[in-house]
Amino acid sequence: MVLDKVNSPADLKALSEDELLALAEELRSEIIRVCAQNGGHLASSLGAVELVVALHKVFDSPRDRILFDVGHQAYAHKILTGRKEVFHTIRQEGGISGFTKVSESEHDAITVGHASTSLANAVGMAIARDTLGEDYQIVSVIGDGALTGGMALAALNVIGEQRRKMLIVLNDNEMSISENVGALNRFFKELQVKKWVQDTEKWGRGVLETISPKLFNLVDRAKEAAKLVLHQENPFYAWGVRYVGPVDGHNLKGLVHLLHELKELDGPTILHIVTQKGKGYTVAEADPIYWHGPPGFNPDKPEKVSKGYSWSAAFGDAVTELAHLEPRLFVITPAMREGSGLVRYSQTHPARYLDTGICEDVAATAAAGMALRGLKPVLAIYSTFLQRAYDQVIHDIAIENLDVVLAVDRAGIVGGDGATHNGVFDVAYLRTVPNVQIAAPKDALELRAMLKEALRRGGPVAIRYARDNVERVAEGSWPEIEWGRWEVLKEGSKAYVLTFGKTLKYALEAAGDNPEVGVVNARFLKPLDRELLEKLALEGYKLVTVEDHQKMGGFGSAVLEALGELGLKPDLRVLGLPDQFFDHGSIPRMHREAGIDAAGILEALAQMGVRVREVGARD
Amino acid sequence: MVLDKVNSPADLKALSEDELLALAEELRSEIIRVCAQNGGHLASSLGAVELVVALHKVFDSPRDRILFDVGHQAYAHKILTGRKEVFHTIRQEGGISGFTKVSESEHDAITVGHASTSLANAVGMAIARDTLGEDYQIVSVIGDGALTGGMALAALNVIGEQRRKMLIVLNDNEMSISENVGALNRFFKELQVKKWVQDTEKWGRGVLETISPKLFNLVDRAKEAAKLVLHQENPFYAWGVRYVGPVDGHNLKGLVHLLHELKELDGPTILHIVTQKGKGYTVAEADPIYWHGPPGFNPDKPEKVSKGYSWSAAFGDAVTELAHLEPRLFVITPAMREGSGLVRYSQTHPARYLDTGICEDVAATAAAGMALRGLKPVLAIYSTFLQRAYDQVIHDIAIENLDVVLAVDRAGIVGGDGATHNGVFDVAYLRTVPNVQIAAPKDALELRAMLKEALRRGGPVAIRYARDNVERVAEGSWPEIEWGRWEVLKEGSKAYVLTFGKTLKYALEAAGDNPEVGVVNARFLKPLDRELLEKLALEGYKLVTVEDHQKMGGFGSAVLEALGELGLKPDLRVLGLPDQFFDHGSIPRMHREAGIDAAGILEALAQMGVRVREVGARD
Repeated sequence: MVLDKVNSPADLKALSEDELLALAEELRSEIIRVCAQNGGHLASSLGAVELVVALHKVFDSPRDRILFDVGHQAYAHKILTGRKEVFHTIRQEGGISGFTKVSESEHDAITVGHASTSLANAVGMAIARDTLGEDYQIVSVIGDGALTGGMALAALNVIGEQRRKMLIVLNDNEMSISENVGALNRFFKELQVKKWVQDTEKWGRGVLETISPKLFNLVDRAKEAAKLVLHQENPFYAWGVRYVGPVDGHNLKGLVHLLHELKELDGPTILHIVTQKGKGYTVAEADPIYWHGPPGFNPDKPEKVSKGYSWSAAFGDAVTELAHLEPRLFVITPAMREGSGLVRYSQTHPARYLDTGICEDVAATAAAGMALRGLKPVLAIYSTFLQRAYDQVIHDIAIENLDVVLAVDRAGIVGGDGATHNGVFDVAYLRTVPNVQIAAPKDALELRAMLKEALRRGGPVAIRYARDNVERVAEGSWPEIEWGRWEVLKEGSKAYVLTFGKTLKYALEAAGDNPEVGVVNARFLKPLDRELLEKLALEGYKLVTVEDHQKMGGFGSAVLEALGELGLKPDLRVLGLPDQFFDHGSIPRMHREAGIDAAGILEALAQMGVRVREVGARD
Repeated sequence: MVLDKVNSPADLKALSEDELLALAEELRSEIIRVCAQNGGHLASSLGAVELVVALHKVFDSPRDRILFDVGHQAYAHKILTGRKEVFHTIRQEGGISGFTKVSESEHDAITVGHASTSLANAVGMAIARDTLGEDYQIVSVIGDGALTGGMALAALNVIGEQRRKMLIVLNDNEMSISENVGALNRFFKELQVKKWVQDTEKWGRGVLETISPKLFNLVDRAKEAAKLVLHQENPFYAWGVRYVGPVDGHNLKGLVHLLHELKELDGPTILHIVTQKGKGYTVAEADPIYWHGPPGFNPDKPEKVSKGYSWSAAFGDAVTELAHLEPRLFVITPAMREGSGLVRYSQTHPARYLDTGICEDVAATAAAGMALRGLKPVLAIYSTFLQRAYDQVIHDIAIENLDVVLAVDRAGIVGGDGATHNGVFDVAYLRTVPNVQIAAPKDALELRAMLKEALRRGGPVAIRYARDNVERVAEGSWPEIEWGRWEVLKEGSKAYVLTFGKTLKYALEAAGDNPEVGVVNARFLKPLDRELLEKLALEGYKLVTVEDHQKMGGFGSAVLEALGELGLKPDLRVLGLPDQFFDHGSIPRMHREAGIDAAGILEALAQMGVRVREVGARD
């Protein structure tokens, strides 16, 4: 095995071209082996194997900084940069992260998980390098999907002005996580059709030799090179960024040669490579959407497995049906069709479906525009990605109290994806915004009731649900719900656990059949059910609030505020996530650590003098 | 006066070309007259007079929707759309808004104030129109500055894919509010230099007659028209958006003609016009940055007036000095050099200064990149605009606890700019994020102490200050500050007012020389001074918290949480802004209405049984 000889990127320098080719195949096998075991971002990482090998052959990490946008294509990078032995722990409790992470390795240039951030990071780094008089190269690897994100495009504008030395590898695999959308993507396809050079290696050697780096010094002179490698009708021309490509991103020798040529060029250069997601693994090549992030599988006989019926699927089924009842319903996703459970919807109602690409801000404001002109938009978005449309929720949606439903998926701790993806801030940042209503259903039936009622009553409504499975309900079930009313699920003689969202199961578990402990499904956070809260406080019950969200600013905080305004001071404990980031790992373990699980609730109750059956950690 | 005959856009239809020209001049005079009286967005609105007249001559508002990006160029639009008689009340208490506002007029297509939102709104509206089978035109007017915003660029990507009927007028005045920056801007300048057609009118008539609209139907055919109006090296080509221009945006007759030609074209079209900010008013043409939004002036003898020494200026002076002491300090602004008090800094330390253009997300992540590579970035940003970089604060800065100082300007109610610009959510959305520290200085000296100490101790620190004046301090003043410690400014025998930020002056006013009432400058919100809070609560003082921020999730809420964790239940009132948006108007009046001024504090104290000298409204 060549890989046996490689413990750091420096070990690649001595390898021959043939050894590099062998190494790429070994990396591919290792990635498939570990993903089969753990699940993981298989297809993206397979598509980037040659690129990663070539980058580490040509550049000198950690001196040179290699930034992987999103970071889910960097598995080969992890293996090559000292994490070979622990690679099998990826995304697992106590193991290495599924994305690049600064605090994990000196070779991870940025901590990442969200798309489109690498270019802004890169220009900041380039400025720092030049300001401090240092000398190294900065290489950003960004997919065509991530490049449709506004902040990547805006960063390009800064990069083109600053004209500092950096290399941007546009890894064009014609998709992000869903199918790619957008005009730029169409343009990239056109480029490929028209300008594709089959023999990258020969092209690299033959053509680049004739190009003096001087030619590239100023974009104003770039026209002279146009017939060679720079396409004027290319958007990058306007941005003042040198453009080279497209070239075959799986031709390892060609890539190494080309990167050597481009390595020391001044100013910003884009190298446009074309790769195939899932490359080298037949099933993943054929269906890169499923194999983008599959759960574990049998590597010799890879088959799709059902991940169960998720909240996302329940949402997707609900809107698919609702769209038949409400002709103005329109569903928007920022590039998360599969993740948001919208495949069926998009097929059933293609004319009332928009995938904006990875630009959450545009998705939210497009929803505002639709609401202004008579539609009933539903924006399906993960909690962590809604952070990227925060101003749009305030400025474009909430000020005019527009009828936009925010279907906030992946709320709470998400597990394998870790700190970048936890949806644990949304309650705090949304509830402070006037006009925004916030609800969390206990099951798929309540989700349907909330969606239907949200559309009926209007205004911005956020409906929050977890990355979890839920029981499927029959089609056509549309129960009514009394807006703003909590639900007493179990009576208690001494205390009540008030729970918002996913932690309901813990509350029920903690209460069990204990007659002293009641459970309230506090399904509306805004408006809060002040009437019930006041009643419980006035009647002297001890109260525990619990939520899968930061304690600071969350549901418990809203309860504290309401009690303060009511002038009531019941015995109250607030349970929520502590003021820290949670890495990837087991959700139950993190819930345990945060004390928001059944044991944590029991502990709080016991501290308040409620008789409980058991206390303390149980796993 | 032609204007006397115009009460709605419909009245423009009958006007002759000469009457339109006269109307434009009358609008210009009226805008100057009212801005001289009230202050306001003078230069942008003067530059857009001909465009607005031409749009209302050619299109049929409110049937056709005209979207003004940012909205500060729309004064002529307001006058022409039924608000002639109330135009003099603009930005005043009870008057009309300085921006377009959906709830103010059926002619205002979007509610706005922040840049770069119109294109996403427009594509949402176009989808709604087509989905509902309606037929009207959507015209978005966007400046070259706003077009550098990522969400505008990303929206263009969706627009180019959707190819729905809409017109985008790129109003290129070579500046946003500061001087424009970025590669795209440079490109626009190049376009002008090379392709400028002097006689727009003739050009319009002569050239456009020869162009069949069919030619434009598909962007793939656009090459055939290239020698006429479409520049292939134009970035819009790649986006699949038809491009026409650049043309003279002050040639009213030419604009009217051209808009007629473009009016019914299918698909998206960009019309690139070139205008001059401040057009027709000599001083504003000469210095459009000052005259962007001047306070009142003498229209016959316009002179710059000093607006006093602002918090922004105090910040600018502090970082200018600090940069001499700390060679790694680097200041970033997203297109707000003047507003953030950074003119002097940018001249003194040009190599350690970056204006990213209007892209707050890029600015924040570039700061992260700098911090990762050894600089000490300070991001100067308004509270309301930091909303646009929320995810970047979490994902790119806070997770790795990077050394980035956020200088959060314009915190609290801002007055004339209204709901879109109030900085009243930042505490709620920042304090829930782990690692983020939050402070608010009481004066310029404390600001300096906080800045210096923030740089020294590292991690993300948000320092929050208001749109207000402050006393200037001597150069070289660098007092020490004990991080996380509140300051008792006045002892009280019975109650303490805990105040965060600007409301300190109200607390001191309310306390006066009343021996019962003490005042605490609760200058650190995170970390909170739990020790002092616990002491006050344990010693039985009644407590009032007060802040110029939403009550939900703000400083008071943080105090409630801390007391809850400490198990203490003092008599406590939380004063803050209620759960609503505040429009433009008088800051003291809004503070009064919210009950966070001295009278509100006195009222709260009185309700708690503290003897106070007077209670109730006083203005």
